[in-house]
Amino acid sequence: MEYETPLFLRVMEYASSADRDVIDMVSGNPDWDPPDALRDGLREYVDLEPAAFQYPPSDGLLELREEIAARRGVETEQVVVTHGAGEANYLAMARALERDRGEEVVLTDPVYPYYPGKTTMLGGTQTFVPTDDRGQLDPADVRAAASEETAAIVANSPNNPTGAVYPAETIRELVAIAEEYDAVLISDEVYDHFDLSGTFESALSVDSDHRIVTNSFSKSMAITGFRVGYVIVPPHLADDVRSRHMLVNVAGSRPSQYAVLHALWETDPTYYERKRELLRERVETFTDALEAAGAEYTTPQGSFYVMARFDDYPGTLENVFRLIDEAGVAGMPGEAFGDSRTEWLRFALVSPRIEEAARRLADYFE
Amino acid sequence: MEYETPLFLRVMEYASSADRDVIDMVSGNPDWDPPDALRDGLREYVDLEPAAFQYPPSDGLLELREEIAARRGVETEQVVVTHGAGEANYLAMARALERDRGEEVVLTDPVYPYYPGKTTMLGGTQTFVPTDDRGQLDPADVRAAASEETAAIVANSPNNPTGAVYPAETIRELVAIAEEYDAVLISDEVYDHFDLSGTFESALSVDSDHRIVTNSFSKSMAITGFRVGYVIVPPHLADDVRSRHMLVNVAGSRPSQYAVLHALWETDPTYYERKRELLRERVETFTDALEAAGAEYTTPQGSFYVMARFDDYPGTLENVFRLIDEAGVAGMPGEAFGDSRTEWLRFALVSPRIEEAARRLADYFE
Repeated sequence: MEYETPLFLRVMEYASSADRDVIDMVSGNPDWDPPDALRDGLREYVDLEPAAFQYPPSDGLLELREEIAARRGVETEQVVVTHGAGEANYLAMARALERDRGEEVVLTDPVYPYYPGKTTMLGGTQTFVPTDDRGQLDPADVRAAASEETAAIVANSPNNPTGAVYPAETIRELVAIAEEYDAVLISDEVYDHFDLSGTFESALSVDSDHRIVTNSFSKSMAITGFRVGYVIVPPHLADDVRSRHMLVNVAGSRPSQYAVLHALWETDPTYYERKRELLRERVETFTDALEAAGAEYTTPQGSFYVMARFDDYPGTLENVFRLIDEAGVAGMPGEAFGDSRTEWLRFALVSPRIEEAARRLADYFE
Repeated sequence: MEYETPLFLRVMEYASSADRDVIDMVSGNPDWDPPDALRDGLREYVDLEPAAFQYPPSDGLLELREEIAARRGVETEQVVVTHGAGEANYLAMARALERDRGEEVVLTDPVYPYYPGKTTMLGGTQTFVPTDDRGQLDPADVRAAASEETAAIVANSPNNPTGAVYPAETIRELVAIAEEYDAVLISDEVYDHFDLSGTFESALSVDSDHRIVTNSFSKSMAITGFRVGYVIVPPHLADDVRSRHMLVNVAGSRPSQYAVLHALWETDPTYYERKRELLRERVETFTDALEAAGAEYTTPQGSFYVMARFDDYPGTLENVFRLIDEAGVAGMPGEAFGDSRTEWLRFALVSPRIEEAARRLADYFE
């Protein structure tokens, strides 16, 4: 399995070189505006003195770490600001594997393709646990897959690509399994602000030395290019995570951190609520059209992806290209996410033209 | 040996909590202004549409890679924009070690402490080759230290901490040694804009499949906090470097890259010349005072560090603290840079108060 971005790039390139108008529903890049306060923060930063243009503290601007800690109910010492959730997950997985408690990483199928990619890079092996049709993970299946060789269990809720939001009980059980096997539950919660179901539960709600939570502002503030994320680690793992962060990246990007901090301070909760409302509308528009087209589809509880299955149209790269050429809609092939969704396509609801995309699909498949 | 930053942090913290005025000559953070065009670029970025706030291409904004390639005389495909030279060196060393041509990394003594730190993290071992009193590296010594086990040779010219600039012949020989042993010369050239001698030679001047050049805009544009660097790799190593970059960091920080690109386009060469002139003046002021104080010292050919040895005052952390308390000047202990400079202290010429610092040292040691 390739990890997402190269495949995603191939789809993007194909779509942009297509000889027709194509609606881009490929990537996880929000199409909406970041908070106004984010721009204000960056505007303020531009004119600061030279000292403000130099290295921030390696683990992040102190006020940013304090703000994150206060919001998440943890100690500031447990927070390391990272170069997006990408680095946060890398640090968490590296730490789990370096504990010499096994080389196996338990992942779900379907899976966000960076997780298996990072696992291989870090010298680990993957064990995949299938989720059900709605993307829900049965903790009993995870327990059956886990062993003394398990270094980490990686969970992502709200989930990309399924849109599943795991109930509190699943999260509690995953932490318990990590404890049983002296492993680490890595809970990637980057879509927490896009819980459309009201049932999202952070792994932080379960106190444990065996769980690491990763997150970022990339999705919640619509700034995937700023690269500001964070990892919340148990105190006894914090030093090692800091060391690797320092040895790989030295420190994060200061203008990005400064702007995010300002946005955290000054952004009203209604900003996030409006984005959820926008997504709910897009989900409804899009799934109504899929229904009309006679497709099977997922209705996301969270995140911003819809998966769809059309008759005799498996989720191959070839069919994604064909859909671009013949219907003018670009999605991701389900085969990019593992063995269990090879019949499916994934559509990201990050275009202002969801209604038009839905109409095109309905017309094409009717 | 610890790597630099934790020790550097301890010195900074000690200095800032001291009960007196302290002149900070600890870190490699320039105290001068970034190019005006850098601020202009960032100001322009603030008001761009949301799409400009999303992921840049993983290997960097295309125009930035093209601009770097044109300036360095390489193909655009060979350039990967990184999160500073920190990540660039990490990627280069990882690639060298992953070739399975040995686990040994040949480093100099004194050494920039991140290199041995990264080596250990990546599972390699260090072999140190002493430089001479002026910090010059004898290629014959490197050849004697190299073996079939050598994965990489890491060179840094202009050098931190010695200020040495390696002549063209040294660079050529280092590349030749890397070729002989099927290893990789990693040439870290972050201080290339601070060549005060006019003798700097980039490893790019030697065409070879066995050398990787790393660099950043952190020092040249006085923006260590922006985290924009790059690695120039031989074509056959480029894909693997890209993959690791993607799996660790996904992509770089877009506002930072945008601002740097604008600054590259719009900054006159006189900006860099003025900074070199400023440094030449600081070197003269500072070394004159060291001369008056009866100290041994280095006169840097490049970079912005001066090393000094005072009678009966070894370069320990304890003595650095004492110098802060008793003289009001903060430097770095020589022992941070390896075994060969334990008698020395390093002073970074990145304070507007160099003259005052020099006077304090002269008074203290006279």
